[in-house]
Amino acid sequence: MNALPAQRVAVATPGGRYDILIGDGLLQQAAPWQGLPRAAQAVIVGNPTVDAAYGAALQAALAPHYAGLTRLCLPDGEAHKDWASLELIFDHLLARGCDRRTVLFALGGGVVGDMTGFAAATYMRGVPFVQVPTTLLAQVDSSVGGKTAINHPRGKNMIGAFHQPVRVVCDLATLDTLPAREMAAGLAEVIKYGPIADMDFMDWVEANLPALLARDRPALAQAVRRSCEIKARVVGADERESGLRAILNFGHTFGHAIETGLGHGVWLHGEAVGCGMVLAAELSAELGLVAPAHAQRLARLVEAAGLPVRAPAMPLERWLELMRIDKKAEGGEIRFVLLEAPGRAAVRPAPDDLVRRVIARRTGA
Amino acid sequence: MNALPAQRVAVATPGGRYDILIGDGLLQQAAPWQGLPRAAQAVIVGNPTVDAAYGAALQAALAPHYAGLTRLCLPDGEAHKDWASLELIFDHLLARGCDRRTVLFALGGGVVGDMTGFAAATYMRGVPFVQVPTTLLAQVDSSVGGKTAINHPRGKNMIGAFHQPVRVVCDLATLDTLPAREMAAGLAEVIKYGPIADMDFMDWVEANLPALLARDRPALAQAVRRSCEIKARVVGADERESGLRAILNFGHTFGHAIETGLGHGVWLHGEAVGCGMVLAAELSAELGLVAPAHAQRLARLVEAAGLPVRAPAMPLERWLELMRIDKKAEGGEIRFVLLEAPGRAAVRPAPDDLVRRVIARRTGA
Repeated sequence: MNALPAQRVAVATPGGRYDILIGDGLLQQAAPWQGLPRAAQAVIVGNPTVDAAYGAALQAALAPHYAGLTRLCLPDGEAHKDWASLELIFDHLLARGCDRRTVLFALGGGVVGDMTGFAAATYMRGVPFVQVPTTLLAQVDSSVGGKTAINHPRGKNMIGAFHQPVRVVCDLATLDTLPAREMAAGLAEVIKYGPIADMDFMDWVEANLPALLARDRPALAQAVRRSCEIKARVVGADERESGLRAILNFGHTFGHAIETGLGHGVWLHGEAVGCGMVLAAELSAELGLVAPAHAQRLARLVEAAGLPVRAPAMPLERWLELMRIDKKAEGGEIRFVLLEAPGRAAVRPAPDDLVRRVIARRTGA
Repeated sequence: MNALPAQRVAVATPGGRYDILIGDGLLQQAAPWQGLPRAAQAVIVGNPTVDAAYGAALQAALAPHYAGLTRLCLPDGEAHKDWASLELIFDHLLARGCDRRTVLFALGGGVVGDMTGFAAATYMRGVPFVQVPTTLLAQVDSSVGGKTAINHPRGKNMIGAFHQPVRVVCDLATLDTLPAREMAAGLAEVIKYGPIADMDFMDWVEANLPALLARDRPALAQAVRRSCEIKARVVGADERESGLRAILNFGHTFGHAIETGLGHGVWLHGEAVGCGMVLAAELSAELGLVAPAHAQRLARLVEAAGLPVRAPAMPLERWLELMRIDKKAEGGEIRFVLLEAPGRAAVRPAPDDLVRRVIARRTGA
């Protein structure tokens, strides 16, 4: 039964070196929690859903290490990824006299991880934190690399900081209870790594998609490990996104426009990224960078994963306006992550006309 | 007339290397603004008072460098050093489509500098900023070293980040219009550097206090330069305050208790630090670390600078409670910056009884 041994992926950045542990049932084990920073107090930050499912187990695993160990629930969902939720963390910490050695544990998906990470980055100018991602999306993407943020009504992740976790613990067992829609959203980020960095991995994902959708543990372990390896390599080379790291945002320029345009939380982040990757690949094909067949192949994979490939109906000028406030934009020029070849991506601008044409085709406008 | 040439103090930290320029009339000159990061947009952040006095001059000096250059006023005062004011900066930036190359200029005192710096640390996960301090306190202390923060109702500077400016430009001419009370508050931080790091400088400050209070430019230039040199040396050795840097908080544990206990803004920060240094020196004497005469000498200097040396009346247990949430506290134990000898300081705990005795004597309780 308890077949899979834990796997380890190392991340080395100027901001710190840490391990990603991947395995089955890690939450209940003792080993994953050894060697973390010592402190009088620690706080497990979650939301009502993950706290009910895993809060007590994590608390039991951490109890030997922290005399003052408490749990805190944030309101669930992307719509609450804001300052008001952050204040709940600060109030909890200050009410308990938590000092600047206090360790925060982010138990949950990307929203909990981003907010807990930003709270850790800024509480007393920085305390250590551990990512315990319980969604596929968080395990393969958002928990790794030290990007933390909250949303602003005008744009997603506009306020944040780079703050690396001291460890990431991915327990594959937590994916069992994940709703199908969130599973698909996570697969969007898994699929992403193929076209931008590793076509062998794209082949593997295509071949193993049924196993992944069926939550086959060895398949999930392989998908999470390879995704984290690629992300660790990219982040290690460019922690602060001065260049290479931006390729991890493949599909995100269109995706963020969808999320902000519809209102945060209407589409899941992974859904918006799935559709956004299709748009970015088709834009790459329009520019003659890759063959149309390559874009079509990606669109089929995104659709097979259960993700939307039809873009939401918004006026074309609204799309462009939303993308101009993307963090990669410079001097009002939108900069897209485009495929330069199968398995390779780069950041470049594109003519507005081509962008409009690609969007129009996918919205049926 | 325009006698003083600009002086330069270099700060080298892992987070970046930058210059502090000190001189007379720098705001109007071209040279101090050469070689800053290029960007399509820049924003001068001030408050109504400094903006009216210096906003137009700084805008004229920067106009050749930034096509989109705007000014923004925050509400004045420590009581507004909060998230609501920070949001004004983010709204201004996002409404203008400011990207992550945008340069922020903090024109004002410590409050403007801390908030603008924290906004720069977190807008799109970090944009460059320049400190243009217009108070003595900001010129000799808060604008140097990369500490940025906002207050929380439960404690001062509780939420923040380390984010180094790309330059600090100290125009001594801006001190002419500083109210006497703020001038004294700035002198508190100047006085601080002597007992913790340089007794020759303490001798010099004692001898030149009348000239400093009369705002004699050469005396001010010397006080600002020497203060910045000492701060740069300490910050260069310990950017993130893992050890040595904490000595710069001499007087601040008591001082923050005063500020938070009375309500932010009732006493000026420098006033609280002035009184706090007297308390910390007397606590050092109680512990037998320095002679009582040394503490008395410091108290006389603080008083001669026009700063309060009588502590506000708060219940003794309230003092202790307030100091336990100081950022230097660990596991509920208050850690004070104490004088170990004239010109040398270190962080250490102290028995509650001695702390109570020292406070009681200075409040007349």
